[in-house]
Formats: sequence, structure tokens, C-alpha cells
Amino acid sequence: LLDRVRFVLVGTTHPGNIGACARAMKNMGLGDLALARPACGLPHPDADALAAGAVELVRRATIHPTLEAAVADCALVVGTSSRRRSLAWPELEPRGLAAAIRALPADARAAVVFGPERIGLDNDELARCTHLVVIPANPEYAALNLAQAAQILAWELRMSSLAPAAPPPAGASFDGMPLASHAELEAYYARLEAALRARGFLAADNPRHLMKRIRRLYGRALPDRNEINILQGMLTALLDDAAQAGKDGGNT
Amino acid sequence: LLDRVRFVLVGTTHPGNIGACARAMKNMGLGDLALARPACGLPHPDADALAAGAVELVRRATIHPTLEAAVADCALVVGTSSRRRSLAWPELEPRGLAAAIRALPADARAAVVFGPERIGLDNDELARCTHLVVIPANPEYAALNLAQAAQILAWELRMSSLAPAAPPPAGASFDGMPLASHAELEAYYARLEAALRARGFLAADNPRHLMKRIRRLYGRALPDRNEINILQGMLTALLDDAAQAGKDGGNT
Repeated sequence: LLDRVRFVLVGTTHPGNIGACARAMKNMGLGDLALARPACGLPHPDADALAAGAVELVRRATIHPTLEAAVADCALVVGTSSRRRSLAWPELEPRGLAAAIRALPADARAAVVFGPERIGLDNDELARCTHLVVIPANPEYAALNLAQAAQILAWELRMSSLAPAAPPPAGASFDGMPLASHAELEAYYARLEAALRARGFLAADNPRHLMKRIRRLYGRALPDRNEINILQGMLTALLDDAAQAGKDGGNT
Repeated sequence: LLDRVRFVLVGTTHPGNIGACARAMKNMGLGDLALARPACGLPHPDADALAAGAVELVRRATIHPTLEAAVADCALVVGTSSRRRSLAWPELEPRGLAAAIRALPADARAAVVFGPERIGLDNDELARCTHLVVIPANPEYAALNLAQAAQILAWELRMSSLAPAAPPPAGASFDGMPLASHAELEAYYARLEAALRARGFLAADNPRHLMKRIRRLYGRALPDRNEINILQGMLTALLDDAAQAGKDGGNT
């Protein structure tokens, strides 16, 4: 998916924004950057500085006199726009955009088009877009800069390219350790209950209710075998008070 | 959801990054910014310039000497980290993080923690996080700057807040009990560590490593206030062996 998407910067005035956009692209695995009627000269130190490890992406960027030339081979051309148009256009949100691009035939290319910083795409350019993408920002402060918008769209494209993600391993299982078995957990609960009962902690009102809460707590965490051994070891250490006191007494 | 999330910048060296982070937050509808042990002076013109329309968010930011102080009232504390740890920690992707925060009880607060630009959170700070969030960037160029990471996480939180479907309550939240705060958990860890140390259980080889495993176990479970009280009560009962033995002796 990521190989089929081009980011097109139209009429960009600040070279630093080209660099920041290139960085966001490369961080997310995108590699096709095109500049249409750029309003700044390149190469430029600001572009390189903000590109950081993505300088080569700036250097490889193709330069075109018009948006039309930059997207000539693309099937889907999606303009970014914050303004509402008098004529409603097919609008996507970023996640829907990523899904739409993913749903394209494998040989179809898509362009995501970013207008000049202050004024955005002009009406003729907007008309050349097949869709618009609108980032649902905070209505009280919706103005994203170019790098922010590029980052969000690149992120959604990457997420879409990685889906279907292998389902996240539910619960625990770290360090390659097997999870504690039911029997191992039960052995711990039994020992803990006996110790708490001996100390009068469970006798009070409703012992079974309290043990249920303890089970629920550990069951939620799904301890692995190492962790259940630590819990058992701690219990042994805590119960060893008398013996320890006796030993200390012997030493003094 | 957005009102319950705090972004915590730890040891930030460039004031411009604080501004850019504030802008990303406000664009996405977030408003709670905290700075822990900041490594730059504020106010600073770079912070204001990059904050743009979010200057008030920088000005309102709370300042704390430690991460712990900045997140004391939070139940979920999620550290951003690119490094792999020797001890694996519960990891979320940004979308899973947003879902996890949305699934918290309505009165529980969450913190998303960003470390210093070059070195990230130190091991002690990472150990105080209940979870880590990892942005699955391009393996060939995975280095996101602070503003990029903040933008992606803020975006996912906003998307989650706009999503219509009520998510299944994953993880914690039972009985309508509030979750234990960071400070309440720390108080338990401190008491447990002291008890284990007094009994020689921690002295052996690597005490800090073992306490990290214990933190990881409970952090995964996100105990509620009732459960943390049970854990404290059990500890009291287990430590009360000598006193109890004395009392029993008196009765027989």
C-alpha cells in the first residue's frame, strides 16, 4: 500500500515544511514525494535540517509545474482542505482515506495533495481532486500546520498497511515465559488463604468474598510462571518472620 | 475522554518542542500539559512561537520536580519508549492506548509520558509506568521527534473520543470503584519493598529487578482502590506475625 501513495506539496513556501513532511513520510514508510509549483528554492538548508534522516527523500522529490502534472498517473487524488466548499465534494476522514487507498486495485496509484501553507489549494486545483480529506480537529483550534497534517495522514496509511494486525496477545505472557497454570495459581491462593486465616485477616466478615477479589485481581494480570514463583517466594519471606527473628536473635 | 488525559513532558531540553507538543494537543482537543524536571526555562519565545494558537496551554502547564509528582493522581501511566527493555513491559500501540484509556472508569486519569529528546525516560521512570506505548514506525527510520509522537498519540485519542461505539470495558474497572492512583500504588510498593528487604528477600542478588517485576505485575492489573486496600491489609496481617503470636500465647 505504502508504495502506491504519493504525497504532493503544492506551492509550498517554507522549505522547512518540505523537510518535516519528508521526515514524517519516511518515518511511516512512505517514499514518493512530489513538489508542484514550489514557491521556494531547493536544495535549502532548512529543508535538510527538518528532514533529518529523510534528506534523500527531499533530494529525490520530483518537481512539476502544476498539480495536474504531479498526479498524472494517479487514480485517486485526495486534496487536504480545512475550508468548506460551496460545492460539496466527496469527503473522507483520514482513516477512511487509508481504507479507500487500500481498497484500490494493486496497480492503481493514489496522491495526497497539500496546498500552500496560508491559502490552501485554489478552486481549480480542488476541482482536480477526486476526493477531499478532512481532519476532524478541535473546532476551537483546527489549524494544523503542513507537517502535522502530513504526519496524521502518513500514520493512518501506515496503520492501514499494517492491518490486519496480528491480534494483540491478550493479557500477559512476557519474556517467553508460559503463563501460570490454573493449578499453580490455586496453590498460591490456597497458601495465601491459609496464612491470612491464621492471622485473623480473613476471619472478620466474609472471607470467601475477599479471596474472590484477590483471585480477580491476579486473574486479570494473568501471571506467568516466573511471577507466580515470585509471589510464592514473597509469601514465604513474609511468613518467615518468626524464624528470621529467631535467627537474628541467635546472631546477637 | 480527552479531559482525563494528561501529557507529561519529562526533562525536555528544547522549549520549541514544548510549544509544538502543546499545539498538537490543542488541535486535538487535549488541554492538560505537565512538565517534569524541565531542562529549559519557561516562558521562552521558541515555546510560544511553535505553540501558535496554543500558547495558553504552555502557560497553564504545571511544573513538577519528578515524574512521580506529575502523575501522582493518575491510574494509568503510559511511557513512550523506542528502546527495548531487558525486562519486557506491557506494551500498547497508539490505537490500543486510546482504547485502554477510553475503557477506564470515568473518574480515572491517565498520563502519557514523553522522555527527554535524546535519551528518553530513565529506567526508574520507566519502572513507574504501568504500560509503554510503542509507535510502529518504519524500522528503517523509526526516530520520531517529540512533536511527531505527541501528534500521533493525540490524534488517536481524539479519534477514540469521537468514535460512537461504547467499547467493552477491558482490563480494570469493577464495582464502580475508582482505580488506585499512582501515589497509592507507590505507597504499597514502598511498604512491600521495606518488608521484603527487612526479611532478606530482596537483599540477595538484584533487589531493583525483582521490584520491577512486582510493579509490572500489579501495573498490568490496574488495581482499584478496594484492591489496593486489600493488598495493604494482607501485608499488615502477614507482618503482624510476632504480635499475633504474642496474643495467641496470652490466650493459651
